[in-house]
Amino acid sequence: MTFDLLAQDPGTKARAGLLTTAHGAIETPIFMPVGTAGTVKAVGQRELKQDVQAQIILGNTYHLYLRPGLDVLQAAGGLHKFNGWDRPILTDSGGYQVFSLSGTRKIKEEGVTFRSHIDGSKHLFSPEGVMDIQRRIGADIIMAFDECTPWPCEYDYARRSLDMTHRWLKRCIQRLDTTEPLYGYEQNLFPIVQGSTFKDLRKQSAEFIAEQGRAGNAIGGLSVGEPAELMYEMTELVCDILPQDKPRYLMGVGTPANILENIALGVDMFDCVMPTRNARNGMLFTTQGIINVTNKKWELDFSPIDETLGGHVSTFYTKAYMRHLFQAKEMLGAQIASAHNLTFYLWLVKEARKQILAGTFAAWKPGMVEKLMTRL
Amino acid sequence: MTFDLLAQDPGTKARAGLLTTAHGAIETPIFMPVGTAGTVKAVGQRELKQDVQAQIILGNTYHLYLRPGLDVLQAAGGLHKFNGWDRPILTDSGGYQVFSLSGTRKIKEEGVTFRSHIDGSKHLFSPEGVMDIQRRIGADIIMAFDECTPWPCEYDYARRSLDMTHRWLKRCIQRLDTTEPLYGYEQNLFPIVQGSTFKDLRKQSAEFIAEQGRAGNAIGGLSVGEPAELMYEMTELVCDILPQDKPRYLMGVGTPANILENIALGVDMFDCVMPTRNARNGMLFTTQGIINVTNKKWELDFSPIDETLGGHVSTFYTKAYMRHLFQAKEMLGAQIASAHNLTFYLWLVKEARKQILAGTFAAWKPGMVEKLMTRL
Repeated sequence: MTFDLLAQDPGTKARAGLLTTAHGAIETPIFMPVGTAGTVKAVGQRELKQDVQAQIILGNTYHLYLRPGLDVLQAAGGLHKFNGWDRPILTDSGGYQVFSLSGTRKIKEEGVTFRSHIDGSKHLFSPEGVMDIQRRIGADIIMAFDECTPWPCEYDYARRSLDMTHRWLKRCIQRLDTTEPLYGYEQNLFPIVQGSTFKDLRKQSAEFIAEQGRAGNAIGGLSVGEPAELMYEMTELVCDILPQDKPRYLMGVGTPANILENIALGVDMFDCVMPTRNARNGMLFTTQGIINVTNKKWELDFSPIDETLGGHVSTFYTKAYMRHLFQAKEMLGAQIASAHNLTFYLWLVKEARKQILAGTFAAWKPGMVEKLMTRL
Repeated sequence: MTFDLLAQDPGTKARAGLLTTAHGAIETPIFMPVGTAGTVKAVGQRELKQDVQAQIILGNTYHLYLRPGLDVLQAAGGLHKFNGWDRPILTDSGGYQVFSLSGTRKIKEEGVTFRSHIDGSKHLFSPEGVMDIQRRIGADIIMAFDECTPWPCEYDYARRSLDMTHRWLKRCIQRLDTTEPLYGYEQNLFPIVQGSTFKDLRKQSAEFIAEQGRAGNAIGGLSVGEPAELMYEMTELVCDILPQDKPRYLMGVGTPANILENIALGVDMFDCVMPTRNARNGMLFTTQGIINVTNKKWELDFSPIDETLGGHVSTFYTKAYMRHLFQAKEMLGAQIASAHNLTFYLWLVKEARKQILAGTFAAWKPGMVEKLMTRL
C-alpha cells in the first residue's frame, strides 16, 4: 500500500492524496460507505460503483464473523469474492460492536468474551483472534482490536483502557506480522488512537501509534456523544502528531459538516452509517441542505432530488415521488434515498478534494458548511 | 392502439404479436410487472428497463386513488410523469381490490361503497367514476369496472354478477367515449370477461365482450383458487370466442407454468404479483427450476443465480450471497430477488415468443413446463 500526498491546502490543514491498495486506488479525502454484513444496506454493488462512485467500502468483522461466518467467506475466497466488490474493502476489528453489547460481554486482558445477538452463543475476541478473523475475511485495510471508550468517561478508566488498547495493538502487530494473507494480496493494519477527550491521553496515544510505523493510522473514540468542538480539538491535536505521509482515518464520522471540518484538520478517510440510516427514515442530504422528504411540503414538488449533484438516482426521481414512496411505505423509497445520500457524501469529498487541489478549500468550506446545515 | 398478429403456432393456439400504444410497442406474449402504488416493489425504474427489460407495467387504481391521490397525479401530468416510467402503463379498475375489502364494502347497482384501508374514509367507485379516475391517472390501457367473483361461487350469484358487470361495462364505455384523455395521448379500454367457472356464462360473457369491438379484451375471475385445469378450460373457451385480431389479457396469472399453458390457449398478456411477492420470501424462479434460497443447501453455492438467463442481476450475484442476505434480513436480498424473478418472467415470455415465431412452441413447451416446476 502506498500513499501519495498530492496537495496541502494553504489556508487549512486539509490534504489531497492517493492511496493505492491491491484492489485499486482511492482518492483522498474519501468517504467509505458502510457495508455491515457484506452489503451496503439497500444499495446494489453495480449502483455503488456507477451511481454512488464508491471507491472503498467497509465491512464489520463482528457481523461477518457471525453471519455468513468465516467458513463461508473463506470458501468463497474472501469477502471481495463473496459479495462481488472488487474495489478496496476495509474491515473494523469488531471491538466497537462487541463493546456495545453491554451486559453480555466481559473485558479481560486476554480479550473480550461476548454472546452473539443472533443466537446467544458465547465467543471470545482477542487481538490475535481478530487478526486471524480479518485474514480470513480478506479486507485490504484491517483495523487493530481496541477499546472504544464511551463518552463521558472517567480519566482513570480512559487511561487504563488506553494502556490496554496499546498492549493489544502490540499483540495485533505481532500476530499480523507473523502470518500471511490467505488470498494472495497485501493486507494493511491501521492502529487506532484512543484517549477519550483527554488531551494528554490523546497526545500520548498519537505518539505511540505514530511510532508503530504502519501504512496508515486511525482515530477512534470520537463522535460518541461529545460536543463537535471537542471532537475537532482532539482530531487537530492527533493529526498534528500522526505522520504526514500516512493516511488518517477518523472512524464513524459523521455529518456532512463534521466531514468538512475534519478534512480541514488533516483527516483523509471517513465512514459513517448516517447517510444510509437516515435515508431509511426519509432524510435526504442535498447540495442545497437537508430535506425530510416525508413532509407534506414536498407533495407537489416535481423537481429532482438534487439536480446540481448529477448521477442517475439524484436527478431521475422527484421529491414528490419520494414523498409518495415513504408515505406508502414502499421499499423503493429507502433504496433511492440510500443511493442518493451516498452519492451526495461521495460528491462532497470529491468536491472538497478539488478545492484542496485548487488551493481554494479554506475559502469554500464556510459557505458549504452553512448550506449543508440548512433545513429545507 | 394497433395490434399486429405476426405468427400463430401451428401446434397450439399460441400467437405472437405487436401491440403499439402511445408510449411505445409491446411484443406479445408479454408479462407485465405489477407496480401497485406507482412502483414495482423493490425495483427501480432504470433496472426495470435495463435489467428486467419490462415493456409495460401495471398500476392499481385503488391504491393510486388513495395514495398519492388524483390531485398529485394530475399535477404531475399523469402517472408516467409522476413515476418516470415513459413506456406503456395499464391500470386495473380498482374493482378487484375494492371487492376484497369484504366487511367494509357494499355492492349496489350504482357502484361499490368502501372504506379506505389507510384511514377508514368512505368512498364510492362507480363505472363512470372509475373511468374518470383512470383518465386522471393516464394509463395507456385502462380496465372496465367489473365484479371479480370469488371461487367457488353459486351459479345464480355468478349469473347475476355477470349481468351487472355487463351493465357496468356499457356505462364505462358510455363515459369513456364521451370524455377526452387529459394528457394528449390515447387511452384504450379493455372490457373483462367474467362468468366464474360456468361454461355457459363464460360463453355468454365472451360473446358480449367481443361485440363491444374494443381494441383489446381481458379475462378476469380466474386464478382465484380454482384448479389449474378448470382455469385452462375457461381460458380456451373464451379465447376461441374473442376476436383473433385483438390482444387478450388474462388478469392476475400466474406461475411460469400457468403462463406457458395459457399462451398455448391464445392469451397474449399477463400480470401477477407472484414474481415480486415470492422474491421477498426468498423464492427464485430460474431456467433450471425453483430455488428457495433461504435453504442451507445454497450456503456454499458460489454459482450465479441463473447463468443461462443473462442480465446483470441474475449473473452477478451468487446463490450463497443471496442466502446470506436473506439470513441476515438485508433489504438487498429482496431487491435482487425481485429484479431477478421479473427478469426471468420477461425472459420466459420472450423465449415463448421466439418459439412461436419459429413454429416450435408446441414441441418446446412440455419440457420447459416440467423444468419450471422442478424444485431445486
